[in-house]
Amino acid sequence: MQIGILGTGSVGQTIGSALIRKGHTVMLGSRSADNEKLVEWKKKNSHSALGGTFADAAIFGEIIFICVNGAIASEVLQQAGIDHFNNKTVIDVTNPLDFSHGMPPSLLPQYCNNWSLGEEIQKTIPGAFVVKALNTVTARLMVDATLVNDANHNLFICGNDVEAKNKVKHVLAENFNWKPEHIVDLGDIKYARMTEAIVPFWVAVMANMGTSMFNYQVVR
Amino acid sequence: MQIGILGTGSVGQTIGSALIRKGHTVMLGSRSADNEKLVEWKKKNSHSALGGTFADAAIFGEIIFICVNGAIASEVLQQAGIDHFNNKTVIDVTNPLDFSHGMPPSLLPQYCNNWSLGEEIQKTIPGAFVVKALNTVTARLMVDATLVNDANHNLFICGNDVEAKNKVKHVLAENFNWKPEHIVDLGDIKYARMTEAIVPFWVAVMANMGTSMFNYQVVR
Repeated sequence: MQIGILGTGSVGQTIGSALIRKGHTVMLGSRSADNEKLVEWKKKNSHSALGGTFADAAIFGEIIFICVNGAIASEVLQQAGIDHFNNKTVIDVTNPLDFSHGMPPSLLPQYCNNWSLGEEIQKTIPGAFVVKALNTVTARLMVDATLVNDANHNLFICGNDVEAKNKVKHVLAENFNWKPEHIVDLGDIKYARMTEAIVPFWVAVMANMGTSMFNYQVVR
Repeated sequence: MQIGILGTGSVGQTIGSALIRKGHTVMLGSRSADNEKLVEWKKKNSHSALGGTFADAAIFGEIIFICVNGAIASEVLQQAGIDHFNNKTVIDVTNPLDFSHGMPPSLLPQYCNNWSLGEEIQKTIPGAFVVKALNTVTARLMVDATLVNDANHNLFICGNDVEAKNKVKHVLAENFNWKPEHIVDLGDIKYARMTEAIVPFWVAVMANMGTSMFNYQVVR
């Protein structure tokens, strides 16, 4: 599949490399196509690793991952061209974290409690099927669920379109070893308020555990 | 032990009855000592079940649980008399939930993101040792951790005083079957921001699971 990824940070690179290993062709999009991190990432990967602008990656992708810093996500979508997302499944991995008050982080005030970055992104690209996913775990675990507890732990997703959510579940199961029965669909994109709000908590638990390689299993 | 509980709702009643079964003497405090719920609760329990005003319960308790509606918690403490909490361990079970926008709830705007009800409570009763605990699970599970997954799941607590947190761990282990190794101390009372912020998420997961009898296990 042709996959576009917006963002060349560790999350975008990790997801991109994992998808290439699974046989997909991946274009990482950045503000400029000669971004150093992008050039490095292409060198480390096969010829299936492509680079371009945000617009290039949005046009290229049949599915698009948003992996940029939450604070600039909306602006990046504008740069990429709103129409390039029409009718596409867009996996929103962003978090609106605010580190300006020190650790642990809070959420950016414009994306907390009664509004979320997931909703803002869906509003910014209304023709896309946005699915919030993967934002609640560390990058390496996103792309290989078996790294924790034999993949017995939960991923929480949400989005307005049921078909797009099913597609995302399939992508996560096929490529990243997530057990479909452990992927919990919380509801429409409004639930991004909840899955983003637990990320400062995640940072606190990480500090306590001394590792980012953990997740939660819902037990009954 | 003499235990004071502020609040006569299902959380206060459940905690009170459980502590009586363990041999403690419990006074539930309410706005007025002839509160109907209080009278009913006393009838259902032994002579170790006492009732009084918020002030009576605060004076009576060697340890005090705050189990009132989050929206009125600070006002209740004022009513109970700030000085009655001095040098006592106070277990804050409250959540600042706001149901005015429908389900799932959000947090009351004055207690979200960069400030929490736990911090507000510690600020309101500065002479007390406030420990935020139990607010992340349903009432029946609070008082018997074995009801879920053989007690293999986590409770997240926080507070400024290490000794008080150790006392709370002990109370939870002795009376409510929480395994000490599963009680995670996240840090000072500021971390109430995190443990309160995950409660709207808890409501969303509850709706998905179709039961409130669940919790999270951190897995690695």
